Amino acid sequence: MLPSSLDELIEALRCLPSVGPKSAQRMAYHLLQRDQRGAARLGQALAHALEVLRHCERCNTFSEETICQRCANPRRDASLLCVVEMPADLAMIEQTQSYSGLYYVLMGRLSPLDGVGPRELRLDKLIARAHDGKVQEVILATNFTNEGEATAHTVASLLTARGLKVSRLSRGVPVGGELEHTDTGTIAQALVERRTV
Amino acid sequence: MLPSSLDELIEALRCLPSVGPKSAQRMAYHLLQRDQRGAARLGQALAHALEVLRHCERCNTFSEETICQRCANPRRDASLLCVVEMPADLAMIEQTQSYSGLYYVLMGRLSPLDGVGPRELRLDKLIARAHDGKVQEVILATNFTNEGEATAHTVASLLTARGLKVSRLSRGVPVGGELEHTDTGTIAQALVERRTV
Repeated sequence: MLPSSLDELIEALRCLPSVGPKSAQRMAYHLLQRDQRGAARLGQALAHALEVLRHCERCNTFSEETICQRCANPRRDASLLCVVEMPADLAMIEQTQSYSGLYYVLMGRLSPLDGVGPRELRLDKLIARAHDGKVQEVILATNFTNEGEATAHTVASLLTARGLKVSRLSRGVPVGGELEHTDTGTIAQALVERRTV
Repeated sequence: MLPSSLDELIEALRCLPSVGPKSAQRMAYHLLQRDQRGAARLGQALAHALEVLRHCERCNTFSEETICQRCANPRRDASLLCVVEMPADLAMIEQTQSYSGLYYVLMGRLSPLDGVGPRELRLDKLIARAHDGKVQEVILATNFTNEGEATAHTVASLLTARGLKVSRLSRGVPVGGELEHTDTGTIAQALVERRTV
């Protein structure tokens, strides 16, 4: 009953996380009726991001370069490697201004129920990265949720088996909490109190 | 700190209704990390919809043609014109399969606080449409919210002043509804609008 281009837009909007048919319809009407400029901008931003964004070959976060600026910065401490789940977690740690090492962004977490195992998470890339000869300590900063803890546990066993020092953020972070929603003071404290595992 | 193309995508996603900075970031990561195909499809759907969708010259709903299929259908009763706020409302009335007249879609409602007055809502277009010489009765089917009621009231005065018959959807207890679970305002209205049987 709807024009096919409108139908297709509503259907396409459903690829957004937690957007169902009603929300998608509301979004489509809003874009077409109230914010055509925003809609055009969004379409262009999507196309551009898909075109230019890749994963940094060293830290795996989104980057427009082969090696992101952070990894290429010689003033960062290359002996420390902090493993986080998502770029948002990296951003939170950077905001504490209490860490000057490098990062590895998993872009997810182990989640067997969703079919994300060590292979899907490409833990082999992390292991290769951690064995560049410069990294002395790997700091696990995955979330303190069940999945984040399981991820940390798995990564820890893989790395300690290969002789690397591995630490975990201290439990200053509330159990069950997520880094993205934790205050920076708590995260800073957890960095200072990290414990060897 | 983020690549500019990622920043721009997150910013652009905020044009979606009720999407704040955190949701926009989550959406961007989801699209780039988990659903690049969906992202590409969304970008194309936006561009295509913006290109081909216009408003039907008769009923004002979204259409790829100058006159939409419904308005062009000679089997619809051209003496009845049903006024709704949004295409979703039109779809609900069509689903009842109990109306065979035509529609006019306001694409909004009067909302003085948001700066939407009779001029912004282009009520002049509705008035012109209602005076095509064929329309005998205008049925107001705006929502029964404060804004929808105000819109109906304004449209009614404009049209009756020009000699057209104007009606409004009846208010009352929902079909299948139990008095015990109906709000008192609705029951009071159902009493006022009681019909002789």
